[in-house]
Amino acid sequence: MTGLEELSGRLREFARERDWEQFHTPKNLAMALAGEVGELLAELQWLTPEETATVMKDEAAAGRLRSELADVMTYLVRLADVLDVDLVEAAHAKLDENGRRYSVDTYRGSARKAPPLV
Amino acid sequence: MTGLEELSGRLREFARERDWEQFHTPKNLAMALAGEVGELLAELQWLTPEETATVMKDEAAAGRLRSELADVMTYLVRLADVLDVDLVEAAHAKLDENGRRYSVDTYRGSARKAPPLV
Amino acid sequence: MTGLEELSGRLREFARERDWEQFHTPKNLAMALAGEVGELLAELQWLTPEETATVMKDEAAAGRLRSELADVMTYLVRLADVLDVDLVEAAHAKLDENGRRYSVDTYRGSARKAPPLV
Amino acid sequence: MTGLEELSGRLREFARERDWEQFHTPKNLAMALAGEVGELLAELQWLTPEETATVMKDEAAAGRLRSELADVMTYLVRLADVLDVDLVEAAHAKLDENGRRYSVDTYRGSARKAPPLV
Repeated sequence: MTGLEELSGRLREFARERDWEQFHTPKNLAMALAGEVGELLAELQWLTPEETATVMKDEAAAGRLRSELADVMTYLVRLADVLDVDLVEAAHAKLDENGRRYSVDTYRGSARKAPPLV
Repeated sequence: MTGLEELSGRLREFARERDWEQFHTPKNLAMALAGEVGELLAELQWLTPEETATVMKDEAAAGRLRSELADVMTYLVRLADVLDVDLVEAAHAKLDENGRRYSVDTYRGSARKAPPLV
Repeated sequence: MTGLEELSGRLREFARERDWEQFHTPKNLAMALAGEVGELLAELQWLTPEETATVMKDEAAAGRLRSELADVMTYLVRLADVLDVDLVEAAHAKLDENGRRYSVDTYRGSARKAPPLV
Repeated sequence: MTGLEELSGRLREFARERDWEQFHTPKNLAMALAGEVGELLAELQWLTPEETATVMKDEAAAGRLRSELADVMTYLVRLADVLDVDLVEAAHAKLDENGRRYSVDTYRGSARKAPPLV
């Protein structure tokens, strides 16, 4: 069992023993995910891109960012479990596609020509 | 190497060979993550919670949701890599904390008393 | 001067006298806007759509929602001012277009056929 | 009647004549709002803050941004109407509060000490 499967199982159990499955519809979980991403943005919104590149050197900010990333991850993994989607497999499938679409030669160094990654 | 580490490495290489690391500041990646979550919400916004619970039975909708989840996962994993955060470990740490905070006895069946999961 | 123009002017002055214009780039303001929308979602995420339709009858929830809407409005108006966009005019232009695209006869009662409003 | 009230009334009528009020619960509208903000972020995510400050000089980008701002405004105004909140009044109330909290002397030139505006 991978670390991701274990985390997913733990979240399933966490919800089950509190009888929270009734609240964990894809609609609700997607909203919760978006809410957590909003909190992540709030940590970075007033910093310059350069400042955010070294933000983990600030211990307090690093702790907050780790916590926000954990929250986003938690809802994403729970949502994927409820929808029965394998996140790693789905991401690889998308990358296979985009590796072809955004050839190294054409897109090298340009963020304008294509949305990087996906 | 876990599936998550492999995905993370592949994304790193994908960015490196296109010289896109310059665009992958935490600030930019967090915005891209939020943008993808927005597309995920758009798939679910007009459905009732009940309809979203069975949305994967509709093949076309299932394909779109899998694709949106892949995009969210991709930017989350890339952002965590750039910030050097272990997503699974961070999520477990948060759950350790919340398992204590939201005891099964007190929070059973209630979404009002506590924000479920995190 | 309309109420919207007055609000916009007050925000401009609020930023100017604190020397915060340097932080108010469109990029930063868009992130702040998204962060506030995340807080708004958090107020509604565990409620059913029906519960949200009567949520303003709960005085505490009503106060929080009014506050979150105010925050979203504030950053939207500030962002539009920085980009020199007339929000009301832009919204009307979009509605002119969508009134033609989504004819009453074809789209009546269906959320599936079209994204309502825009 | 102000421009905002007129827009709000037009949206109400737009929904009514298509029988879309059934979909316009606060929960659904908040998700739609977040989805549109995601599209706005996507326009700005790979640009530097400096580039976004002059983004309206690029006619194509300006058109897309005007369109995205219109979409965000549309759902915000519709949501506020459904919740019976006066957006301009709510924003002023928040600013009254924050004008006191973030005194000009203490917060001048600092984004770290306080979340600007709200």
